[in-house]
Amino acid sequence: MAENGVRPINRPTNPMVTPLLTDLYQFTMAYAYWKAGKHLDRAVFDLFFRKNPFGGEYTIFGGLDECIRFIANFRFSEEEISFLRSAMPACEDGFFEYLRAIDCSDVEVYASPEGSVVFPKIPMMRVEGPVAVVQLLETPFVNLVNYASLVTTNAARHRFVAGKSKILIEFGLRRAQGPDGGISASKYSYIGGFDATSNVAAGRLFGIPLRGTHSHAFVSSFMSPDEIVDKTLQSCDGSIICEDFVSLVQTWLSKLQLLDSTNGVFGETNQSELAAFTSYSLAFPRNFLALVDTYDVMRSGIPNFCAVALALNDLGYKAAGIRLDSGDLAYLSIEARKFFCSVEKEFGVPGFGKMLITASNDLNEETLDALNKQGHEVDAFGIGTYLVTCYAQAALGCVFKLVEINNQPRIKLSEDVTKVSIPCKKRIYRLYGREGYPLVDIMTGENEPPPKVGERILCRHPFNESKRAYVVPQNVEELLKCYWPGYSNKKREELPTLKETRERCLRQLAQMRPDHVRRLNPTPYKISVSAKLYDFIHFLWLNEAPVGELQ
Amino acid sequence: MAENGVRPINRPTNPMVTPLLTDLYQFTMAYAYWKAGKHLDRAVFDLFFRKNPFGGEYTIFGGLDECIRFIANFRFSEEEISFLRSAMPACEDGFFEYLRAIDCSDVEVYASPEGSVVFPKIPMMRVEGPVAVVQLLETPFVNLVNYASLVTTNAARHRFVAGKSKILIEFGLRRAQGPDGGISASKYSYIGGFDATSNVAAGRLFGIPLRGTHSHAFVSSFMSPDEIVDKTLQSCDGSIICEDFVSLVQTWLSKLQLLDSTNGVFGETNQSELAAFTSYSLAFPRNFLALVDTYDVMRSGIPNFCAVALALNDLGYKAAGIRLDSGDLAYLSIEARKFFCSVEKEFGVPGFGKMLITASNDLNEETLDALNKQGHEVDAFGIGTYLVTCYAQAALGCVFKLVEINNQPRIKLSEDVTKVSIPCKKRIYRLYGREGYPLVDIMTGENEPPPKVGERILCRHPFNESKRAYVVPQNVEELLKCYWPGYSNKKREELPTLKETRERCLRQLAQMRPDHVRRLNPTPYKISVSAKLYDFIHFLWLNEAPVGELQ
Repeated sequence: MAENGVRPINRPTNPMVTPLLTDLYQFTMAYAYWKAGKHLDRAVFDLFFRKNPFGGEYTIFGGLDECIRFIANFRFSEEEISFLRSAMPACEDGFFEYLRAIDCSDVEVYASPEGSVVFPKIPMMRVEGPVAVVQLLETPFVNLVNYASLVTTNAARHRFVAGKSKILIEFGLRRAQGPDGGISASKYSYIGGFDATSNVAAGRLFGIPLRGTHSHAFVSSFMSPDEIVDKTLQSCDGSIICEDFVSLVQTWLSKLQLLDSTNGVFGETNQSELAAFTSYSLAFPRNFLALVDTYDVMRSGIPNFCAVALALNDLGYKAAGIRLDSGDLAYLSIEARKFFCSVEKEFGVPGFGKMLITASNDLNEETLDALNKQGHEVDAFGIGTYLVTCYAQAALGCVFKLVEINNQPRIKLSEDVTKVSIPCKKRIYRLYGREGYPLVDIMTGENEPPPKVGERILCRHPFNESKRAYVVPQNVEELLKCYWPGYSNKKREELPTLKETRERCLRQLAQMRPDHVRRLNPTPYKISVSAKLYDFIHFLWLNEAPVGELQ
Repeated sequence: MAENGVRPINRPTNPMVTPLLTDLYQFTMAYAYWKAGKHLDRAVFDLFFRKNPFGGEYTIFGGLDECIRFIANFRFSEEEISFLRSAMPACEDGFFEYLRAIDCSDVEVYASPEGSVVFPKIPMMRVEGPVAVVQLLETPFVNLVNYASLVTTNAARHRFVAGKSKILIEFGLRRAQGPDGGISASKYSYIGGFDATSNVAAGRLFGIPLRGTHSHAFVSSFMSPDEIVDKTLQSCDGSIICEDFVSLVQTWLSKLQLLDSTNGVFGETNQSELAAFTSYSLAFPRNFLALVDTYDVMRSGIPNFCAVALALNDLGYKAAGIRLDSGDLAYLSIEARKFFCSVEKEFGVPGFGKMLITASNDLNEETLDALNKQGHEVDAFGIGTYLVTCYAQAALGCVFKLVEINNQPRIKLSEDVTKVSIPCKKRIYRLYGREGYPLVDIMTGENEPPPKVGERILCRHPFNESKRAYVVPQNVEELLKCYWPGYSNKKREELPTLKETRERCLRQLAQMRPDHVRRLNPTPYKISVSAKLYDFIHFLWLNEAPVGELQ
């Protein structure tokens, strides 16, 4: 296939993504096509979804990179052929010879760039090729796109609520739906606007920044500061060695207790916690971040943290901050901030009041929104379960529908009009208005002249006769680009890096008219067909639908 | 480690399951332990969840097999060590030398057998070993158990509603949360009581029976029976060759139309559908199963299917059945059954009325229940999205808590009493009553004498003083078995085959008192601690909790 000097295409991230990762019926159909001599019929399929997730009015397209990696490496191994032979004993040998020979050189894939804002009914991908081969791609493509798009959209929605200035860290590996539920979640959360992940495997595979400190178990694994054997710590600039850092911490804790006597917040702090913090700071003096809620945030965690942070400060180190993982995060973050500020003032430690406060514990869009409304002092959020499992809506319903075969347009009817597919090999354009916002996406037949800047065009709702509008676009963008040219002589679009995809996502979201992306009652973005395509859809529909007979 | 002549342990199913599949903080903690010389402290962790999913009162434990595979192969590659070195630049070289050397030979894992019915707060696994190593296992273990247990439980609940006599097929690959969300779903749905999957990769990896026929696209890829080139079909016994099977089908369709003229259900059937069915039957004459709802079930799909099935019958073949994928499944299945019965009677085809009816289309517990209440004629259900994404509750909250270190019991406190962990290395027993049902699970300290059959024992709620009951067990079962003996001289339990695990699951569920497993208002199963453990928990709690000061 044409490479045109662009970057080579890697294997799928998950080695389990092979041509067997599909539904059996793709193979039984392939056999029936083959047996009927129909397997080379040229088919065109659209990949799209019908409804935006999470009650929103937009979706971010994810998973394209993995789809292209998949088809670039699409080949059956001998072992896979043997398995298929055993699973389909009724099939003739010639069929397995055929399978042994196929790859995706004769397939063409057109798609919106990954990280694009996309809308219902508008194909995100169009796949053309021999019908038997393209059918085999259906399940893996839909599998690779569905969750990817869902979790990217979920991440973008969390970013939207949290605001641009907050640090968002994906924490979901342990609650994710299996190992690569976790790994994909890290990847696509990053595209959707997260800053970092706790998942080391994702850090290695994708270069996503990693974050992590310690858990409650670390805290409770210590008994008391007495068990710390090596108490020495060299100062940040290497000039002095503190021989007994543990005592230095104790001294600071006493000073804090005096300071506190006016406020009366804490008495004795927990000694196993103090030991754990001290020990952790000895290991990471340059990056001391403590989980402060194992026993009691304000009466133990915060003063213990401050004692260690102030001792570190004496040696020229700057502590990083705290993490809150339970309780009233709004209240606790505000109280913690106050305490940090009073420490800054009392002991003259510049910047101590600006200590990073991270919050976690079952956060989601709603709790972020509630925190914003209450007011809080959190700088960074660690988000797990609700982000990675897409708890609010655990599936996106992407489908893969035949729209043309051997140049014959095909329509899939349904009792439910929202499930009727839009036939024909199509082109998709996004039309922009005066203020630079996208106004409407329009689908046209492949050979219709494209919409032109400054020229009025009629955009029709595909199924609702009365919904139509004239648009004079200020800018016209064709959405589907060629990512896999097959034997066509088109240029293959370069697959962008993860960072580039993330930037596209953030840029595209910033470009949307605000009412389309807001959380409450967002305005639906308009999708449409050309007048010509509208007429053709309805002609074909009448042609295919049986005429009922009332009795 | 001791192998004791049992079956060897394979690698994890997903090659991405390596020691890097963990949270960064497990490594930062490991470093802090190492730096403090504490990394070899002997720690005991419990893996458990706090609440049953899906509003039910039971959970099925899944994922153990993958956890044991993981630790049996736990080793850092050089490349992984290099990555960690770059990700943790502040750490000393000695730490990476330490990581390079570790494996899980010094770790012990005790667990309930996979496929067991398990309950909140009762550890499903207990993991002992050097604290730094066991911490590294936390994230992968929880990841491997959480979704596995969730989807096994979900499958068991679907089986419960569907009833024992129905065939249940997992259809979820395309909507699953990523590639191995799909593959794991197939595996664990099978354990939970499903009969088959559409997922070919899962069929190959686990030997799960595969099912699949054709899609709507297959139907609409045909235009008319004229395009069928090879129309010959040999009879089932090979005695005759039908030269024009297409005409035979057409003849039967005409006869059906005459039969129908009394009922007036259909006029002209869809020709592309007829062509697709005929073509599919030519490929799979022994296993003809047709998707009948592409155009109109009763006016086109069913008569087209019957025409092909009757033509096959002439040649000695028995058609398999139909699949319904939209519309009112209760009504359509009943109408289809009636039609099949009238064909059986009219044309004297024995068994035609018993044709298999499969239903799919966004099925879940509720829709299965509604179908049962309405009455239906469906024999097999294909269940996808709601099963594999666990749509009703997309995550199970398994946690991994430190309960002892260097023989010192540890407790994790929380403002929320349901989050307080139960300290100590424990033994777990299931006590059975007279009728053979499990009555209560009881946790005791490791060295307490075990409950004895026929001897009265006090079972206490771990946190609610007033909830306690005497039990005289008729049978006592110790739940945690040794699946990884480390350097202990215990015998390693054999990992059962997938089929054995499935049988255990079905057997255990059948053994539960019905009110614990019913869908509506199930009775909570009792979990408890011994009197001695109760006292110790509350002693430790008072010891660790700070005393408040009201102002």
